[in-house]
Amino acid sequence: MSATHPLPVVLSMGDPAGIGPEIIARAFLERPALQRQVVVAGDVATMQQALRLTASAPASAAGALMLAEVDDLPELGAVPPYCMPVIQACALAGPVALGQVNAEAGRAAAECIRWGAQAALSGRARALVTAPIHKEALAAAGVDHPGHTEMLQALAAAHAGVPVSALPVRMMLSCPGLSTVLVSIHVSLQQALAAVTPERVLQTIRITDAHFRRTGFAAPRIAVAGLNPHAGEGGLFGREEIDVIAPAVDQARKDGLLVSGPHAPDTVFMRARQGAFDVVVAMYHDQGLIPVKLLGLEHGVNTTLGLPFVRASPDHGTAFDIAGTGQASATSLLAAIDAALAATGD
Amino acid sequence: MSATHPLPVVLSMGDPAGIGPEIIARAFLERPALQRQVVVAGDVATMQQALRLTASAPASAAGALMLAEVDDLPELGAVPPYCMPVIQACALAGPVALGQVNAEAGRAAAECIRWGAQAALSGRARALVTAPIHKEALAAAGVDHPGHTEMLQALAAAHAGVPVSALPVRMMLSCPGLSTVLVSIHVSLQQALAAVTPERVLQTIRITDAHFRRTGFAAPRIAVAGLNPHAGEGGLFGREEIDVIAPAVDQARKDGLLVSGPHAPDTVFMRARQGAFDVVVAMYHDQGLIPVKLLGLEHGVNTTLGLPFVRASPDHGTAFDIAGTGQASATSLLAAIDAALAATGD
Repeated sequence: MSATHPLPVVLSMGDPAGIGPEIIARAFLERPALQRQVVVAGDVATMQQALRLTASAPASAAGALMLAEVDDLPELGAVPPYCMPVIQACALAGPVALGQVNAEAGRAAAECIRWGAQAALSGRARALVTAPIHKEALAAAGVDHPGHTEMLQALAAAHAGVPVSALPVRMMLSCPGLSTVLVSIHVSLQQALAAVTPERVLQTIRITDAHFRRTGFAAPRIAVAGLNPHAGEGGLFGREEIDVIAPAVDQARKDGLLVSGPHAPDTVFMRARQGAFDVVVAMYHDQGLIPVKLLGLEHGVNTTLGLPFVRASPDHGTAFDIAGTGQASATSLLAAIDAALAATGD
Repeated sequence: MSATHPLPVVLSMGDPAGIGPEIIARAFLERPALQRQVVVAGDVATMQQALRLTASAPASAAGALMLAEVDDLPELGAVPPYCMPVIQACALAGPVALGQVNAEAGRAAAECIRWGAQAALSGRARALVTAPIHKEALAAAGVDHPGHTEMLQALAAAHAGVPVSALPVRMMLSCPGLSTVLVSIHVSLQQALAAVTPERVLQTIRITDAHFRRTGFAAPRIAVAGLNPHAGEGGLFGREEIDVIAPAVDQARKDGLLVSGPHAPDTVFMRARQGAFDVVVAMYHDQGLIPVKLLGLEHGVNTTLGLPFVRASPDHGTAFDIAGTGQASATSLLAAIDAALAATGD
């Protein structure tokens, strides 16, 4: 039976002191059929505790769900019904105190990500979905990378035997009806302006196109936003559209990509949502994130483009303040799992 | 009877070559009761043509509507039912060719605005709603001001006998559920960054507060957006929040205003829409306009704050490409009229 199963999605547990374990348990409680496609890379005792906590929460979906420890991915097809499959992917002495920064928790979270990335890189998993980690816990554990993206980029580069610079990545944020890929992310707006270069804009367009083609679009319709009000209004309100963005769009079009722009930033997202484009390339963090968060914070999915495998995550953090209270919603995590499945053929 | 009537709203015709006249006619066709509160400052022959064109359009609301020429505002209460009251507020030799830049049209549009502004400044009108004008036509007519805002600012300053600099104004854009006031508008993003000064942010907060208090809010809840991703994340992604925005917010709070921030730009608009705030002060054009246009382009209303009277306009232009085709919608104009009525007591 397992031979006919498609490859599974690996779901990394996230920081065990945050809401990661409980939203994973909640996702399986709400959708037991996930067990046929998703396996958790985590700590068995932590996931067991999260399952008990979530199943007994007043707001929980009814129904009995068991934890099934699996030794490796090929066993997935043999998991009994109503079980959440978990692989012991890290060394942890047991559940940690919830809601606190903890070096052990950070180390365990990093081990689970590494496990999942290796599974995807070696072709044993179809995609990686990551539950939230905590930056400070990661740093306390001595992990060099500030977050998922940098860690996955380094692992993928090492696997390919190339420098990290040869593997540029971009962040895509999506909600139902709107996807946007960002030219830059966590820098000041002043630095973001400096990051709007022809090379970087063109690279963003190319990475976006490659991702959408790989995930089933024959010719994705890419809209490129301008940087200035009204996309500069012919140079009146800034020249970046003329000097930087238009040349990048022209080059991409010459390469055969279905790309248009620069479009007026204040209407391009609305037009994309109405169906005119498949994705919008945004020039800076808030240009892209304001519309996506406004349309669907609960359903937001973060996807890393440029990696050799599909990686998606919910668009929220570890929420230490509510960890263990049973209040955390699995909606965004389920949206991330759905996005990973859809991008890999389901 | 006219003595008991509240003061009317004056509706300036806009550029006679654009969609202004026909969306005004359509607004009265769709809502004949407007005649009790709104009078058009325009050209009678142009408005007559627009009424014929609109009434005969396939998509038009049914019903007979006549044009009633009135000599001045006090006659408004005497307008017969099912009539659109129009004051001849400009000198025009008759209808102009539609969809073309025309100096005569620009001059007439400016005269109508001046007529409406004087009515509001002299206390004979409760508010001014302006149909769209065309910048190039205005320039061709030799009008010094690039648009409504600058023209109204100059007229109000002259009326008060003060320099224009003593009458700072701000643009507010609203749609159902979200209003945002902009620190700067039609400048490059680079220049917008430079416009984020403590004085200018504080002035924007004060102008916003004064407008909302005047229009019926006892203590408007004003949210101030940050400039950088995550509002700078404690200085990691830019220092404007710490050095510029927070001090302005603190000062406003000391002055007794109900103001908070700087908030993360990518979630503050969502929170305002959910009811946490009455209005968001946005640091630059697209930060505020992306969310408002996404939520309701059709229902967008532009309001000028800081003038001694209420001025609202639809959030679209003259649309020369569809002028005369009967396709233009009156939705945004009706939203502007409703906003002007609501802001002045209805």
